[in-house]
Amino acid sequence: MKLVIVGGGSSYTPEIIEGIITRHHSLPINNIVLVDIEEGQEKLEIVGSLAKRMIKKANVPIELSWTLNRREALQGADFVSTQIRVGGLDARAKDERIPLSHGFIGQETNGAGGIFKAFRTIPVLMKLAEEIHEICPEAWLINFTNPAGIVTEALLNHSPHKKVIGVCNIPFNMRHSIAEIMDVKPEDVQIEFIGLNHFVFGRKVWINGVDRIDEVLEKLSSKEMDYAPANIVNLGWSETFIKSFRLLPNPYHQYYFQTKQVLEKDIAAFKENGTRAEVVQALEGTLFKTYENPDLADKPAELEKRGGAYYSDVACSLMDSLYNNRQNIITVNTLNNGTISDLPDDAVIEANCLINKDGPLPISIGSLPSSIKGYVSNMKAFEQQVIKASLSGDYHDAYLSFMMNPLIQDEQVAETMLNELLEAHKDHLPQFFK
Amino acid sequence: MKLVIVGGGSSYTPEIIEGIITRHHSLPINNIVLVDIEEGQEKLEIVGSLAKRMIKKANVPIELSWTLNRREALQGADFVSTQIRVGGLDARAKDERIPLSHGFIGQETNGAGGIFKAFRTIPVLMKLAEEIHEICPEAWLINFTNPAGIVTEALLNHSPHKKVIGVCNIPFNMRHSIAEIMDVKPEDVQIEFIGLNHFVFGRKVWINGVDRIDEVLEKLSSKEMDYAPANIVNLGWSETFIKSFRLLPNPYHQYYFQTKQVLEKDIAAFKENGTRAEVVQALEGTLFKTYENPDLADKPAELEKRGGAYYSDVACSLMDSLYNNRQNIITVNTLNNGTISDLPDDAVIEANCLINKDGPLPISIGSLPSSIKGYVSNMKAFEQQVIKASLSGDYHDAYLSFMMNPLIQDEQVAETMLNELLEAHKDHLPQFFK
Amino acid sequence: MKLVIVGGGSSYTPEIIEGIITRHHSLPINNIVLVDIEEGQEKLEIVGSLAKRMIKKANVPIELSWTLNRREALQGADFVSTQIRVGGLDARAKDERIPLSHGFIGQETNGAGGIFKAFRTIPVLMKLAEEIHEICPEAWLINFTNPAGIVTEALLNHSPHKKVIGVCNIPFNMRHSIAEIMDVKPEDVQIEFIGLNHFVFGRKVWINGVDRIDEVLEKLSSKEMDYAPANIVNLGWSETFIKSFRLLPNPYHQYYFQTKQVLEKDIAAFKENGTRAEVVQALEGTLFKTYENPDLADKPAELEKRGGAYYSDVACSLMDSLYNNRQNIITVNTLNNGTISDLPDDAVIEANCLINKDGPLPISIGSLPSSIKGYVSNMKAFEQQVIKASLSGDYHDAYLSFMMNPLIQDEQVAETMLNELLEAHKDHLPQFFK
Amino acid sequence: MKLVIVGGGSSYTPEIIEGIITRHHSLPINNIVLVDIEEGQEKLEIVGSLAKRMIKKANVPIELSWTLNRREALQGADFVSTQIRVGGLDARAKDERIPLSHGFIGQETNGAGGIFKAFRTIPVLMKLAEEIHEICPEAWLINFTNPAGIVTEALLNHSPHKKVIGVCNIPFNMRHSIAEIMDVKPEDVQIEFIGLNHFVFGRKVWINGVDRIDEVLEKLSSKEMDYAPANIVNLGWSETFIKSFRLLPNPYHQYYFQTKQVLEKDIAAFKENGTRAEVVQALEGTLFKTYENPDLADKPAELEKRGGAYYSDVACSLMDSLYNNRQNIITVNTLNNGTISDLPDDAVIEANCLINKDGPLPISIGSLPSSIKGYVSNMKAFEQQVIKASLSGDYHDAYLSFMMNPLIQDEQVAETMLNELLEAHKDHLPQFFK
Repeated sequence: MKLVIVGGGSSYTPEIIEGIITRHHSLPINNIVLVDIEEGQEKLEIVGSLAKRMIKKANVPIELSWTLNRREALQGADFVSTQIRVGGLDARAKDERIPLSHGFIGQETNGAGGIFKAFRTIPVLMKLAEEIHEICPEAWLINFTNPAGIVTEALLNHSPHKKVIGVCNIPFNMRHSIAEIMDVKPEDVQIEFIGLNHFVFGRKVWINGVDRIDEVLEKLSSKEMDYAPANIVNLGWSETFIKSFRLLPNPYHQYYFQTKQVLEKDIAAFKENGTRAEVVQALEGTLFKTYENPDLADKPAELEKRGGAYYSDVACSLMDSLYNNRQNIITVNTLNNGTISDLPDDAVIEANCLINKDGPLPISIGSLPSSIKGYVSNMKAFEQQVIKASLSGDYHDAYLSFMMNPLIQDEQVAETMLNELLEAHKDHLPQFFK
Repeated sequence: MKLVIVGGGSSYTPEIIEGIITRHHSLPINNIVLVDIEEGQEKLEIVGSLAKRMIKKANVPIELSWTLNRREALQGADFVSTQIRVGGLDARAKDERIPLSHGFIGQETNGAGGIFKAFRTIPVLMKLAEEIHEICPEAWLINFTNPAGIVTEALLNHSPHKKVIGVCNIPFNMRHSIAEIMDVKPEDVQIEFIGLNHFVFGRKVWINGVDRIDEVLEKLSSKEMDYAPANIVNLGWSETFIKSFRLLPNPYHQYYFQTKQVLEKDIAAFKENGTRAEVVQALEGTLFKTYENPDLADKPAELEKRGGAYYSDVACSLMDSLYNNRQNIITVNTLNNGTISDLPDDAVIEANCLINKDGPLPISIGSLPSSIKGYVSNMKAFEQQVIKASLSGDYHDAYLSFMMNPLIQDEQVAETMLNELLEAHKDHLPQFFK
Repeated sequence: MKLVIVGGGSSYTPEIIEGIITRHHSLPINNIVLVDIEEGQEKLEIVGSLAKRMIKKANVPIELSWTLNRREALQGADFVSTQIRVGGLDARAKDERIPLSHGFIGQETNGAGGIFKAFRTIPVLMKLAEEIHEICPEAWLINFTNPAGIVTEALLNHSPHKKVIGVCNIPFNMRHSIAEIMDVKPEDVQIEFIGLNHFVFGRKVWINGVDRIDEVLEKLSSKEMDYAPANIVNLGWSETFIKSFRLLPNPYHQYYFQTKQVLEKDIAAFKENGTRAEVVQALEGTLFKTYENPDLADKPAELEKRGGAYYSDVACSLMDSLYNNRQNIITVNTLNNGTISDLPDDAVIEANCLINKDGPLPISIGSLPSSIKGYVSNMKAFEQQVIKASLSGDYHDAYLSFMMNPLIQDEQVAETMLNELLEAHKDHLPQFFK
Repeated sequence: MKLVIVGGGSSYTPEIIEGIITRHHSLPINNIVLVDIEEGQEKLEIVGSLAKRMIKKANVPIELSWTLNRREALQGADFVSTQIRVGGLDARAKDERIPLSHGFIGQETNGAGGIFKAFRTIPVLMKLAEEIHEICPEAWLINFTNPAGIVTEALLNHSPHKKVIGVCNIPFNMRHSIAEIMDVKPEDVQIEFIGLNHFVFGRKVWINGVDRIDEVLEKLSSKEMDYAPANIVNLGWSETFIKSFRLLPNPYHQYYFQTKQVLEKDIAAFKENGTRAEVVQALEGTLFKTYENPDLADKPAELEKRGGAYYSDVACSLMDSLYNNRQNIITVNTLNNGTISDLPDDAVIEANCLINKDGPLPISIGSLPSSIKGYVSNMKAFEQQVIKASLSGDYHDAYLSFMMNPLIQDEQVAETMLNELLEAHKDHLPQFFK
């Protein structure tokens, strides 16, 4: 079995390598190819060498190589995972800085920044999906690349390749946090996730099959705990908020329901340390220094400080379930097809799915609670507009996606930010500058 | 035929009297009763006397009287119209001042102010609808009272009386404004209205049956004109906004899509002249002075400076169409019942309806454009939450309605404003202070 | 203004000519071209000559001509009407005889016969619609050709021409019958029609705007009257049936709800007089004899014995309303677009529409009564399968359309009848015999 | 843990006892109470004694008793299963004989017979559900009683008890039959079941996670095999049928798609052996003779000849999964809640569900194939009408349910059969004879 990691030079790669090594007995991948683009060659070699050392130390029969030739790498692939960042951390810095400078949320996957990440990423991954469809049509494409929900929907609805699954670490993290709060093992916790990637709520929390959401909310509202990942703020939620919605929010909801406070914190942080991209850039520098150490043959502990920790764990479990027809539940991004009655069939949602060899089968959700139904419909309509604009490169489509985003929705500023971001990302947006 | 005007002491009454007089030949109303509450007795007498003089001058066989006894007034009524303001202009001033003081939109029918107007009004009109159902069950209740869409939905879904129609002057004004811009007669213009009261868009503009929306949008985006009524700001719309949405916005959309600018203007105006309520209070003082003049026997021209001008014209046309089974089109607020596919059947929408004796038959709309579908769904979900809270008097229901309103949606400020407004309006919110 | 009548040699043409003459002052058509195919040339000349005499006698300034060259005829057309019969009455005889011989309903627009009429007609009218789209794209195509609902849907969804409206005389007849029963003028009656062509029900009967359905049903169930047109049986409805459904059935419902009895009657009639097609053939022979009389300059009274009487009246009213932007209600076949919540947006339904210059605007219906919702959904799914098979020429698609028809639904007989009908109509089904 | 078996005197009881004994280690039921009505006392004792001997032989620590006092039996129950037959086999004989005598399908769960079985059963089980809700509200009610889908829906929507799951052996049988045909183990087969109880189709057949429906259909259409249970005819399916629908039919579909042939067979069988009820009566006589044998301490092999074999296996697996929070897939009858987009949320469907301690979570199905969507909608509308009539006892409701059933739908015969069946079952239909 062969796994191709697109964006193989990413600092996250050691995590996925560790995941593959750990699962070797049930998931017999024996060929891993790391692929990257020319600009990433140096990192690719550092990461590749570390991965090789990890495999050697683990003494598992896995061949690993790296290459810049993607088409060649895809030959015979069974799984392809993606963890790319078009334009690198420099582009991310612009996604963060420009909106912040106008007093709006500047973030990697939300607001204007998230929209532009989608604009840059979707065309690149569309090309990849077409190649997979041509070269290794039976391969599963496991997409980690953010905004993961939007990207996955673009591929599922607009590329010829239909074996695409999107993953995110937020549901995984929430499950683990709840396990911790409730003092049980993560595997005993199931959360009924309802909604969209980075906009998902928990409606039930089953602990060994018994719904204990009330206790969980009680604990959350008493501010005993929080469960935000490393890369985003964590303000906690007021008792009134929790008691009114009676849903488990995810950390990203802070951007939408605590906008002013998050903005203040983000602007303060920005003034102190620059954008999050710049913080990460420094962090990455250190990480790659560590990776270069020829004595290192393990995933270094520092990696967990990155926001994306556990992505790979989700991805490896998913591959394992697909390969072994496990029929267990994993929370992934897949087509709605009626799972949430309030959203169109072709919307990608984040939901609990039974995973068999044939792919994810979402468990029925029905209607969303009235308190979030309209908001979620609105978010999905926004996401679909982003995809439309990503593919058309049409200025008015892009403007509409700004106006439909609840973090922007300002006739004037939308236009100003859109123009600045288009100019700033010109090199990575060929569709807008035909 | 008998018409009962609830809130008969309102300064708007002369307009409706004029409308009835003008239509006397096709709409043979010969008995009008003005009803008001004790606090309004003085105004009621002033307005009633003026109305009597108008009728006398017009020499039409209409009996007119006034009373504080509503149950008696309702005996034998064919039409009941409502134009009440629970708490008067003082309450409105609070709805405006409190949100503005937190940097949020403070307005009569939108945002936190609109929510509280609904909280105060719905229980009072529920009581009226119950009386009508008991005393004059065949009467049509024509509701002008704002927030008109929300109030109408509350009555249609929660009161026993089902003959309720909500009217607003915005569609009427838009049609007249477009006629002016396009240099045609208002009766040659039909706009396909899609959406909700105070959140309605125009999708088509038929001039003598030919859809000329493109020309209209061209003119709008070139800022040649505006069509906001007297009581709200008028900022115009950018070319990019108009060309992206390709829909006719209504003036209230400025609150949602130009929030910051409107807020700046409103705060500046507030600093100069106090709240809009206070401006109107002054205006009303002058109006009633004019009304008292025993030589006045016409609707004075000053009345048109109030925001609500032409409400009565819509209401009189509606009564005329109902009575005469005219089968013509009037834009009213009525139950969706599938007219807009994206909204629930029991949602009240603002739509073009064919009016026959049996009531309004909405013309099918189908799916909303994707650019507004999510937003409108969200607004409707919000409205339904307001109704729920108005009836339950539950604090968490009220909080949710704040969080679901796109002009608030702030975990902290929602709570603060809610608490202040509850305290300020205590006397008119028995359901919240049981 | 120019009207092109495709299938101009039809015996119905004098009726439409009369309709045009009568409406000359409001609908100034001054050019009529009758088009037909070579096999119909003789009839075309007879009918054309009669039409010329009618116009001359009426002394109206209308030019009338006839031709076999359809493309030429279409130049500059404003309206195109269709009344064709692919394969003529011979084909109809087969549609009737073959199913009857297997003990199944054999009828022109229902069951196996109706399916094959669609199979023969749809490709021919698709070609016409393409020509119209190319040659006179602004023209309205008024389709009378049966099965009118299915044919109209095929054109609206699969041809490039979107200005297509389907008409049927059944709603017109029902309205007139009800007027007679209730002893009022037809123009005072409005029926709320809900459903599909030849499967439409009446939910309300407004007489001068007051819903009097209860009285109408009372009369119907007491068997005082019937309202079936000339071409189909008339068995009446039992009191239990009427009191249970509380809907106005249309005469075609007898095929579905009184299948055995209709079948017995039809088989008896068949044994006595042959198929209805053969009866009509004889009738037509006489009619054309009458038409040839050079002294005849009026629509002969005998024409009303044909089942399709008043089709043309509906069509002429429709053209008049379109031309004059009348905004009155006419019952036509048009796209659902949410009008009936239970059916897909792209389904053609038969519904009351407000007619303006831009086309028909259906009046919202909402959900169908639960007693017919499933049945109507089933019929629509069947109709869409017929269209699919008409276009694909795929044997399994055709078989499915047989199995989905409630008058067939027999695994074995479906196959037998399908095979026989395919063989019998071979010459007119090129798509199935590629 | 305590299990109460309502209708404990049924000949099926030994099967469920065997199931409980076999699963003793994972499903620690230690108290079983068999409940029956007075008329069933003799059978109850025979079955109870046999069950005691089975438990003794198996040497498992289960206490078993029997009683006529249902309320007492329910004290402390964890599971309640139902296998009652209101009116006994005599009533079934009437359900079969009366329709057959009019040339219509006379069958236990389909057509007029099935409707009357529902009319008799629903009020009785409503009473039981109310008692459970009062006495042992945490107990799961596992309903086997036919028509299982309709009965389960009646309880879930109209009784206060919400912990109700309906089971049927058809999906179990289909899975086993397919395993046999494909020469794999039943546990390696998953069928994607879509539809309603006794009207369910298979859309996918996963064998170890790979969808092999095409091969399965190939085998089915070549008539190599059949998979009908003992109690219904088995005619096989034509290649054309299978290739057109591309779905796995269930044996009951023969009633709907091969009506004439089934009817011929059934009438022939009836003439030879009387109704199926009478055949079963004889069979039961023999069975109970066998049960009385004091040396018998096992479920006798003859039991498998009854149509309902394996019901208990499904029920025991279900209890095991609920108790152990297994999160495995079992096909049960539960509320739709959006699982099938084409059906209302409150419809009970038969679908694959993940079973956790909290109950069944259906796996999302989305839209049904267009070939069956209308038919299934129609069946569900019919079922909901049956429930309405069962509860109202209204004659017109009952008539509508006859007219909405695709096996009847005859204005005249519906009335005749309805009247005869009402008369015949008078004693068991108090709601219709108030």
